[in-house]
This record gives sequence, C-alpha cells and structure tokens, in this order.
Amino acid sequence: MTFAELWESLLPLGRDAGTGGYRRYSFTDADLACRQWFFQTSAERGLRADVDANGNLWAWWDPPPAALVAPGAPRPGAGGAVVTGSHLDSVPDGGAYDGPLGVVSGFAAVDRLRAQGFGPARPLAVAAFCEEEGGRFGLACLGSRLLTGAVAPQDAAALRDGQGVTLAEAMTAAGLDPARIGPDEDLLGRIGVFVELHIEQGAALNGLGAAVGIAEGIWPHGRWRLDFTGRADHAGTTRLEDRRDPMLPYAATVLEARQAAAAYGALATFGKVTAEPGGANAICSSVRAWLDARAPDQPVLDHLVGQVEAAARRAAAAQGVEVGVHRESFTPPVAFDPALAARLARALAARGITAPVLPTGAGHDAGVLAARLPTAMLFVRNPTGVSHSPAEHAERADCEAGVTALAAVLEELAGP
Amino acid sequence: MTFAELWESLLPLGRDAGTGGYRRYSFTDADLACRQWFFQTSAERGLRADVDANGNLWAWWDPPPAALVAPGAPRPGAGGAVVTGSHLDSVPDGGAYDGPLGVVSGFAAVDRLRAQGFGPARPLAVAAFCEEEGGRFGLACLGSRLLTGAVAPQDAAALRDGQGVTLAEAMTAAGLDPARIGPDEDLLGRIGVFVELHIEQGAALNGLGAAVGIAEGIWPHGRWRLDFTGRADHAGTTRLEDRRDPMLPYAATVLEARQAAAAYGALATFGKVTAEPGGANAICSSVRAWLDARAPDQPVLDHLVGQVEAAARRAAAAQGVEVGVHRESFTPPVAFDPALAARLARALAARGITAPVLPTGAGHDAGVLAARLPTAMLFVRNPTGVSHSPAEHAERADCEAGVTALAAVLEELAGP
Repeated sequence: MTFAELWESLLPLGRDAGTGGYRRYSFTDADLACRQWFFQTSAERGLRADVDANGNLWAWWDPPPAALVAPGAPRPGAGGAVVTGSHLDSVPDGGAYDGPLGVVSGFAAVDRLRAQGFGPARPLAVAAFCEEEGGRFGLACLGSRLLTGAVAPQDAAALRDGQGVTLAEAMTAAGLDPARIGPDEDLLGRIGVFVELHIEQGAALNGLGAAVGIAEGIWPHGRWRLDFTGRADHAGTTRLEDRRDPMLPYAATVLEARQAAAAYGALATFGKVTAEPGGANAICSSVRAWLDARAPDQPVLDHLVGQVEAAARRAAAAQGVEVGVHRESFTPPVAFDPALAARLARALAARGITAPVLPTGAGHDAGVLAARLPTAMLFVRNPTGVSHSPAEHAERADCEAGVTALAAVLEELAGP
Repeated sequence: MTFAELWESLLPLGRDAGTGGYRRYSFTDADLACRQWFFQTSAERGLRADVDANGNLWAWWDPPPAALVAPGAPRPGAGGAVVTGSHLDSVPDGGAYDGPLGVVSGFAAVDRLRAQGFGPARPLAVAAFCEEEGGRFGLACLGSRLLTGAVAPQDAAALRDGQGVTLAEAMTAAGLDPARIGPDEDLLGRIGVFVELHIEQGAALNGLGAAVGIAEGIWPHGRWRLDFTGRADHAGTTRLEDRRDPMLPYAATVLEARQAAAAYGALATFGKVTAEPGGANAICSSVRAWLDARAPDQPVLDHLVGQVEAAARRAAAAQGVEVGVHRESFTPPVAFDPALAARLARALAARGITAPVLPTGAGHDAGVLAARLPTAMLFVRNPTGVSHSPAEHAERADCEAGVTALAAVLEELAGP
C-alpha cells in the first residue's frame, strides 16, 4: 500500500461536510472510527496492536525471537523499543495533517523498511496518543500525560467535556476501564526512544526551502481561564454608569494580551469565549475566556501572563466586575535530547537529506515523553504555516519526503 | 383571587432552578405552560380567550349585547375595544416582571373593576403578545410586528432559532398554522386604544419617589449583527504578524462602542458573542457579535452606529479581517399619543395618584402598536433599575399600586 492509499483511507473519518474540518474528539464516533482504522491498518501489516490503560494505541513490530538469531548477532531488543507516532484526535474544525500525518507516516515507514528487507533488531512500534489536543476534555496531551504520571489519574478521570460527561464516563462507554488509568512504568521501561513526525505548524521550513526539519525544543506554554463576573441588566435602560458589564474588561484584556505578546516576542491568543446569558438585548452577567500564552522561555512567559492578568484585574475593577484567573494547563520548556537530534541529523545527511533544526511554540506528546525518554521530532514542511484549520495542507511530495526521513531514522535507531 | 395569588400562579413556570432566571422562549414547553396559564386564567373569569394568527393571546370581556342596554344609554363598543396587556416570554435568564407584570395586572384590574360593579361599555381585552423579547427567533416584538404588518410574513416564517428551527416549524409544532401569519386589519380595526403596563427597566421612578409613571416615548433603537471573518490558525505557531485574528477587531469595537455611547449620551451594548470554531488553542476563524444601540433621537443613533461600524471596519482592516454589518431589527422613535397620556394623567390625578412622565430606552409592543393605534404605557417602580436579570424586582405594594392605576385607566377608557 502506498502512502497515498494509506492517507486516503483515513481522510474521510470525522470530517465535517460543512466546514471541511475535522471533529475527531476522543471517544466520539469519529474517534472510534479512527481507532478502528488503526487496528485494521496494524492487522493488514501483521503488527500486534493493543490499547494501553490510558487509551493510547500501539502497533508493535517485534524482532524475531532470540532463538532464531544467528549466534554472535546483536541481541534483539537491546536498548529498548523504538517508538514513532503522534495522535489521531483533532481540535474543533482542525486540519487533516496535525497528528494523523505522524501516525500514517509511521505505518508508511514500516512498509518502506519491509520493502527494503529491513528487520528490526529491537521492538519497533507506531503509537497514537489519546486526546492530544484536549479538544474534548480540555487538557492537552492527556494520554501521554497519564502514561508518564504528569497528571493525577483522579484529576483526569473527573475532567468533563462541554456536555458535562467525565473522561471516566466516556472511557467506560468506549469499553475501557477508567479505574486503570495512570502511569505505566512497565510500558515506559520497555521504550528506548520516541520520535514523533508532525506537520510544521508555522512556515519556517518553507522559508528555509527544506521539506523536513528536526525539532530543537518546545516553548513553555499554557492555558488560563479568565472568568469575568458582572451583573445582567437591560441593555436599553441601564445607564452606562450603573452597569457592571463584564464584556468591557474582557475586550480590554484581549487587546492588552496582544500588545504584551508583541512586546515580549511571545504569543497570546483568545480563541474561545462565552458570554452568559447571551441575550442580544441584555448586558451579560459573565464572560468566560481562555488565554493561550507561549514564550521562548519561562521568565518571559511569566511576565507575559502576569501582565495580562494585571490588565484584566485593572479593567475589571474599573467596571465593578470581578475576575478570576485559573491556570488550566501548563507545559514547561522542553529541550529535546541534543545527542539524539545530532544522530538523526547525521543519519539523514548520510542519505542526502538536509534537515534544519527549529524551535516550536506548539505542544506535542513528544514534549511530554521527553521528560522520561530520549525523544526527538521531525517536522514536515507546511507551505502556508496554517494549522488548526481546515485549510491546513502539506504537499504530497513533502509527505513522501517525511516518510523517507522517518524510515531512515527508524532504520538508524532500530537497526542492529 | 388577589393579585398575589394570580402572580404566584404564574411565577414557577419556566423558571430555571439553577439561576433563578426565566427561560420562557416562544413555543417551548415553558412558553406553552404560560399560554395554558393564560387560557385557564381567562376561563376562571369567564373571559373569551383566543389565539390570533400570529400567536398572540387575547382574553375578551365583552359588553352586554346591545339588546340588553337600556334605551338612551351609550352604544356599547363605540370607539373600539380597550386593550391592555404585555408579554409572557423572557430573555435568557430574565426576571419575573418584564412582561408578565403587565398581563397579570391586566387580569387583576379586571377583577378589581368587577368587584367595583363596573361593566364595560365597549369590549375590553387583556393581551399577551408573542416573542416580544426576540429571545428565540432574534426579532423583538415579533407578534405585534406581524399583527401590524411591520415585518413581512415570509421573512418572519424563515427566522431560525439557535438550533436552526424556523418560526414556521415551531408554530406548526405548537398546533398553529404558519401560513396564516401576517397583518390582521380586522382585529386591528376592532381596537380603539392600547395601554401596556410594564415594570420600569431603570430607576427613574425610584429617584422621583413615585410608584407609577406614564411613558412619554421610546428611544429609537436596534440590533446590528457584526460578522468578523479571519482565518483559523494554530495559537502556538502562527507569528503575530501572520495572523488574521477576528477577536482583535471585535475587542476594539466593544471598547469603541462604549466610548461613543458615552460621548453621545446614548447606550451601546455587546451582550452576545460567539467565536468559531472556539478551540482554546486555535486562533478563531470568525467572531459574530451583536450590537444593541439606543439613543434619544434618530440622528444621534445614526451617528453612534456609524461610528461603531467605522471603528469595526478600521480595526478589522488592520488585522486582515473582513467585517460584515447587518441590521437585524430597528425601531424608530415612538412618541406615545400626548392626548391619551394627558387623559390618563388626569384620570389618575382624580384618584390621588401622581404619575410622572418618563422616556425609556426599552422597546415594547406598545411602541409597535403606536404606529397604528392611540397607545399609552404605565410603568411600575423598579427600586434597583435591574432588569433582564434574575435579580429584577418590584415591591408588592408598587405592583398593587400599578393594578389600581391600570383599573382606573381602564374604567376611564372603557366606561360609558
């Protein structure tokens, strides 16, 4: 099966006919269809697929049993398993590539290696991590965080989606046992290295004229919920000076966040907001909004968020509005393993592939796993830089170049 | 039945247990329960109740047939029917008084007149108009607009609620025939005068120390929908200078609207906003928001809205965002019939009631009907001025004073 065929087999699942974007939220029908696709794709390749206690998927290519290996050959499995993969879930109306490209490329790389007659000297796996986007339960990289113990199981189980359904309830409905979620040291102990391939979510590679890049690290980033609480009133009769309108400090905070981010060379975004009760002819009683903030290092991020919070409190106080600020998620800075990145660069250079080294502001499961394992990332060129959008796109030739690079990396890491 | 008993019989219907606010949206279960209450209350009084083609409710107290009137007495019905009433629907999480106080007071005034031995010399009706708040289909005073031809039936029938249900579908589901909606000249021709009693939605009467007031007129006002369209992108990787983020011009527009309203002595409110797709880690592709604007006169309102629209276009252009501005509803200035207001004031003064004359920024069915009929409004004191909120309140003694005033007015208008 070619990369194109593999890619097309996943493409229709969870795609919204109206927007053309994806709505693959964990444990919904769309996500279950993607999981089914993962198992079928594994079975077609004779890979041993399973789901771990945290809802992450694994497709194992086992080395031959030790008894079958010629005397004097390297011991299979030494150094632990080589794992590649990414995720299948999406943000609301996300693109086709963010996540799935890494999973599809992992299977395609396995096909490529087999066609070359390569056999792994240690276990090799393709993984798909659960709820990377936090699109349903609000906590990004939920599956890898649970696996590594970066989130407490009881906290995760109680997370609720927009309809009030808990993660525990959703897992139960999908046939999984939420009582089993949490760190899995046995599984982690069997992994030697993790390499995630991902579409670039900016246009740096395009500027550099390269199809593939290697990640240097991930900016520290997080999500803060701001709750502005005022007082509902009639829009047609309440004097301006008598109002406690939470929309006004929200608006001031949006503009202040943008200015602060620009001043600090950082990023700040308000992409989600709700106003209650939401009548067009009533002053709202509350505005709830989410700040996404990212910066090159921790002190800059702290300054940025501190300034936004101070602006929110100042603007709220001026309108008689209360404001609460709650950090919903946070990922500290990640520096990927420099020795591993250098090894990948050498392996690619040996095959004539020039892969520039890039930082990124996006969180990934690789960033979570980097706290426990030697971890690396490959990026595939995104010609426009657009991501988290139905317009997200990568050229087919660049996807093929990504598979070639990933196969070379897996051969380097899982070879004898 | 006392006013208190009548009031308490309506109070629980459509009240949200969580917020304490009302969610009486047209043709929902809550609204149908209120309609049932109207029919039952009419039946208990021997009033002839019916629903007109536009979903408005009417409870008729007919004068005795001409044959029963003593020779030489004034001819019953001369001058047309005297109608009082208001509406039963609510904004999201609205208060108990806005609308229902006028309907309940109408029935209570009928009880009061009957107890006094009064019999009408012309038909007297209590009315409850459909969808006054526009809380479900977005067009305020929908029932009175349809009745008077202020909105085209085909436009109204196609209005959709938040779930995409049309007015026509909702009416059909409620057992009404949407093919019959539209102006009803026969019904209008039978009405001589309309008087709406309503809780004041500001605190002017409280400042004047009066329990009851008479409306002078209604500020021109309307609702404008602003659609900011940008481009969805990843919040963690898209450089600030590459973004087309619609949240930024929206925020700038909110602040500009407030400043302009303050400068003009007018009102501007953004109480409803939605961001799509609404992921916390994605720049949104679009922001849709509603401007509610009101001013003492038409030129001021035009200036205010023009300035807000210009600000939205300027801020949008600076971010590479498109903006569309669509007027969803508009009510020109209303000056209630001065001769009728003076007659009401004299009738009240004759009973020792001092009722100051007030302007208002709130739209009412009376404002729509004023284009076709001699129309007046009575306001009942609101001690805090809070309205469109669960905290909306009127003192019981002031409600009773409102019934007394309304009964006096109906006696004056419907008497021989």
